Amino acid sequence: MIANDPYAELERRFARMSAVSRAGAILNWDRSTMMPDGASEDRADQLATLGVIAHGMMTAPDMAELLSRAEGGKAGLDPWRAANLREMRHAWIHDNALPADLVEARARASSACEMVWREARRNADYKALLPTLTEVVTIAKRVGEAKAAALGLSLYDALLDEYEPGGRCQRIDTLFGELEAFLPAMLPRVMERQKQRGAELPLDGPFPVEAQRKLGLEMAGALGFDFHHGRLDVSAHPFTGGTADDVRITTRYDEADFTRALMGVVHETGHALYEAGRPRDWRRQPVGNARGMVLHESQSLLMEMQACRSDAFVAFAAARIREAFGKSGPAWEAGNIHRIYTRVEPGFIRVDADEVTYPLHIMLRYRLERAVLAGDLALADLPAAWNDGMKELLGIVPPNDAVGCLQDIHWPDGAWGYFPTYTLGALAAAQLFAAVRKAVPDLMGSIGKGDFAPLLAWLRTNVHGKGSLADTDTILSQATGSPLGTAAFKAHLESRYLTA
Amino acid sequence: MIANDPYAELERRFARMSAVSRAGAILNWDRSTMMPDGASEDRADQLATLGVIAHGMMTAPDMAELLSRAEGGKAGLDPWRAANLREMRHAWIHDNALPADLVEARARASSACEMVWREARRNADYKALLPTLTEVVTIAKRVGEAKAAALGLSLYDALLDEYEPGGRCQRIDTLFGELEAFLPAMLPRVMERQKQRGAELPLDGPFPVEAQRKLGLEMAGALGFDFHHGRLDVSAHPFTGGTADDVRITTRYDEADFTRALMGVVHETGHALYEAGRPRDWRRQPVGNARGMVLHESQSLLMEMQACRSDAFVAFAAARIREAFGKSGPAWEAGNIHRIYTRVEPGFIRVDADEVTYPLHIMLRYRLERAVLAGDLALADLPAAWNDGMKELLGIVPPNDAVGCLQDIHWPDGAWGYFPTYTLGALAAAQLFAAVRKAVPDLMGSIGKGDFAPLLAWLRTNVHGKGSLADTDTILSQATGSPLGTAAFKAHLESRYLTA
Repeated sequence: MIANDPYAELERRFARMSAVSRAGAILNWDRSTMMPDGASEDRADQLATLGVIAHGMMTAPDMAELLSRAEGGKAGLDPWRAANLREMRHAWIHDNALPADLVEARARASSACEMVWREARRNADYKALLPTLTEVVTIAKRVGEAKAAALGLSLYDALLDEYEPGGRCQRIDTLFGELEAFLPAMLPRVMERQKQRGAELPLDGPFPVEAQRKLGLEMAGALGFDFHHGRLDVSAHPFTGGTADDVRITTRYDEADFTRALMGVVHETGHALYEAGRPRDWRRQPVGNARGMVLHESQSLLMEMQACRSDAFVAFAAARIREAFGKSGPAWEAGNIHRIYTRVEPGFIRVDADEVTYPLHIMLRYRLERAVLAGDLALADLPAAWNDGMKELLGIVPPNDAVGCLQDIHWPDGAWGYFPTYTLGALAAAQLFAAVRKAVPDLMGSIGKGDFAPLLAWLRTNVHGKGSLADTDTILSQATGSPLGTAAFKAHLESRYLTA
Repeated sequence: MIANDPYAELERRFARMSAVSRAGAILNWDRSTMMPDGASEDRADQLATLGVIAHGMMTAPDMAELLSRAEGGKAGLDPWRAANLREMRHAWIHDNALPADLVEARARASSACEMVWREARRNADYKALLPTLTEVVTIAKRVGEAKAAALGLSLYDALLDEYEPGGRCQRIDTLFGELEAFLPAMLPRVMERQKQRGAELPLDGPFPVEAQRKLGLEMAGALGFDFHHGRLDVSAHPFTGGTADDVRITTRYDEADFTRALMGVVHETGHALYEAGRPRDWRRQPVGNARGMVLHESQSLLMEMQACRSDAFVAFAAARIREAFGKSGPAWEAGNIHRIYTRVEPGFIRVDADEVTYPLHIMLRYRLERAVLAGDLALADLPAAWNDGMKELLGIVPPNDAVGCLQDIHWPDGAWGYFPTYTLGALAAAQLFAAVRKAVPDLMGSIGKGDFAPLLAWLRTNVHGKGSLADTDTILSQATGSPLGTAAFKAHLESRYLTA
């Protein structure tokens, strides 16, 4: 079989690897939503084993030859298969760079560190995290070095390339530089304008979890979430997991404040629509994968920041909110709710940050993780460097490490090189939304009626439906007329926070 | 590594296979409890792939040599390792008998047939099931023939051996023969006695699901279920799944009748305690597996039928039940509840059957599945044969196939050769409970206080803690003084239904 059609054999093998990876995705979801505490070691063993098995399939002795022979016959492949083969090669380079023991060590170190981190964060005790975090960073460096050699990239770019294929520091530095020239100057103007407007009226609860859950289900449904192929559950850290046919989104509820859970559901629904929206027939092949974390995050932020924090949508949602909680009065008017949903304020916590200050949180993490990986910053000095950076970028200093450098799961979890994709995603979201507003007449009118079909149709054609056929910039250029830039994002912030 | 210590290499490989199997167990649980309908094909692909991977690990080209070489050095192994090696060989024979394509075909045919069965049962439409069921039986026969050749057994014994290692038709025929000489004669006497006693007072609801759930959690906890290592959820067909460190039990609630969900939780808790009670260090090795489905079912039935339908336990539970639902009055006295929980009545549905008529349901299925597998009964004639058998054994004829031959998931699911273990488990439960009552002074006194610690301690020592060290009969003989028999079961039925 190998001799006759190496490409077909590769498709067969990648379909099998995909099944293992999809099994792992459900087990990961379960770990964060359903699994009892006492099972964490058992689950870590299951996931590490599946990881090693998938790695073994990818690095089977005959894979190099299969890829070469398929590439030799590339002229005979249609563009879809050619793109699929390119993605296969890319995935293979990443996996083949790592010996099996490093793959297993990485999985086990991350699981172990994540457990320690939960406790360390609870106690604001960075020192307790330091030994396992050191192990995670040591392994991340080994991974980065191995991949850097295989890909011909710098260590940081090699790690970033796992989350955002083709993503490079040089490009990020340029884009972040443009934001750094803009945001710190903009922030005080926004704050001043907000101050003059006066405080919002508080939305007094309590808001029963069940009513919040129903409202979330309704909103996710309005955006296009298909509950025949997905679920909404609760987890400590909201995320989108599962598979394209079985998308699992989560949120967390606070009975004193419904606004975050609701917008969290909208955010994860954006991710979910990208997962569900890629072509059904492509799903077991690399070309059917999400293009990368930049486009993924662009889809959640397009829904959350662009579409659903708009005046138009908030007016629609406000009526549903009043009904869901049986509320009325001035605080519950759309204008007041919109002001709450667009309030800007420097804070300690990234996941609670508004869209103006959010990039500053990311720049801090990007700067620090590059320094740690380059050996320019010792992990022992991370808390001090964090606090200095917060002071410089946001003008505030965290009172303890729990709301400082211990707040995010990413570093303990081994996701070094991941953070910049959040802000790149915000840029892409603004750029895509500007394009769809031009392309679809009265888009905001539809959104204001809770009708997301025109938006979703455009995204299906221009983003979701492309899978990994082309690179991020090509997809963005085809959809918006230009590669990733900061112009649309800056225009969006000015329009929403300084003009409207 | 192989050259130096073949046994150690086998332990390493079986630990890895165990991790794949445990991953599959969680995915199976999710399929029945959480998975959205639209994901069934995706999940079937994941599970079939994991099955093929595990099979590939077991049947790796060097496994035969590893096993032989380890067996050659058996004299140097301690009894635990020797038993583990014996279980490895047994598992290998089962897997190695089947080519990979048959393993995958079996998984896919079962998944497909189960989906068709759900609809066919809903519509009481056996004809709709016939084509996929025929495929499942064809594959079961191929599996049985291959295993029969490898194990030197008859086709049926080879299939049964998968669920109950060492289980044989000849033995079942003897035991079932003894029951057939006893039950049909006993049943009318029980019915007559029950009639003279008069009808029970009805327990009027409704019983809110949340109150039922809380009561179930409390009872499971009283029996010894550890929620740090497990969960209780809802599924259409109650079962125990997951892993030893992460035991997932399920039930289903009916707001008009709490009695079945509550006893269902007790039943599954019995299974769960067996899963959780095997030694922690053995869990990734074959010797740490459950001995077989006979002892597994004995543990659920010991809790449900022996311990928790006793006068002593029902008196304890009745007080908790009254409190949970805010009830009082004569219907809610322990005596009335106990009469409800020990009512005997021939019915169509196996899972609703009392312990007197239950074996008759099993004998019917055992008889029919042997005939189908032997080619003596065509699947097209199964409904008629079913109805004839019901008439003969229970004196009633199902009005349609939904409550007749379509009621159980087992045959569509590919579990041919499984049914007899239910009744063998009932026999073992009675025998074990008679032994523990002798061994533990005032056992019923403890149970009547909701204190299951003495019972659980005895089970841990005499059943759970043995894992697969010895065969079922040896474990039973050591615990009770004799191999599996019908005497204790018959004595139990006479005592509960004709004497007390």
